Amino acid sequence: MRKIEHIGIAVNDLEASNQLFEKLFGAPAYKTEEVASEGVKTSFFMNGPNKIELLEATNPDSPIAKFLAKKGEGIHHIAFDVADITAEIARLKAEGFTVLNETPKKGADNKLVAFLHPKGTNGVLVELCQEIA
Amino acid sequence: MRKIEHIGIAVNDLEASNQLFEKLFGAPAYKTEEVASEGVKTSFFMNGPNKIELLEATNPDSPIAKFLAKKGEGIHHIAFDVADITAEIARLKAEGFTVLNETPKKGADNKLVAFLHPKGTNGVLVELCQEIA
Repeated sequence: MRKIEHIGIAVNDLEASNQLFEKLFGAPAYKTEEVASEGVKTSFFMNGPNKIELLEATNPDSPIAKFLAKKGEGIHHIAFDVADITAEIARLKAEGFTVLNETPKKGADNKLVAFLHPKGTNGVLVELCQEIA
Repeated sequence: MRKIEHIGIAVNDLEASNQLFEKLFGAPAYKTEEVASEGVKTSFFMNGPNKIELLEATNPDSPIAKFLAKKGEGIHHIAFDVADITAEIARLKAEGFTVLNETPKKGADNKLVAFLHPKGTNGVLVELCQEIA
């Protein structure tokens, strides 16, 4: 794990939140992207070596829709940049973590991603992500 | 805002969580610190340019105790590194954010800190922090 790649924040209204975070960072989102397989629309803000990802649900079965219904808006996950996601999944499984995606899947922002179950990480949904070359 | 300085995670048992996060990062906490004024014991892990702060409450009136009672363990706040916290507080107030500490206060890890009210930031508790020279 080389750095925090991004923090994912669940929001009700992506357009309104884009305006809010543009004020917070003093710069607009550098891209927006829909990930149909996850049922989300996303936007990304750069912050030095890190990113902030805003996520709005596009259907009621989206994990983000369920999170918003249960907990309301707020931080949804923390993603760490890894050099070799397959090796990192194996290392973390051996350490006793529950990896939700033993085979990494395609995520937003040109990444292979895998999640750890938050029950094993003090309630924090941890994402591993590796840039697709 | 130059980068994510750290992510703060509220935990019930700092010692157990230190062991867990040492496994996650493959390296131990580089320091622990008690902040009596906030009613917390903290530990810090380096992750490239970023840090992870674990927070355990030391008394029932601590903001962390209240967070844990209401929401359980999980991500408590996101802290951004700023060059000039006084200027940043003024800028964010002018943009309409509610700054909870108009005068920055001394936080953990040799920082001046100020928080933004999460009602104005999509439910995210945002901390500004400036290294004390």
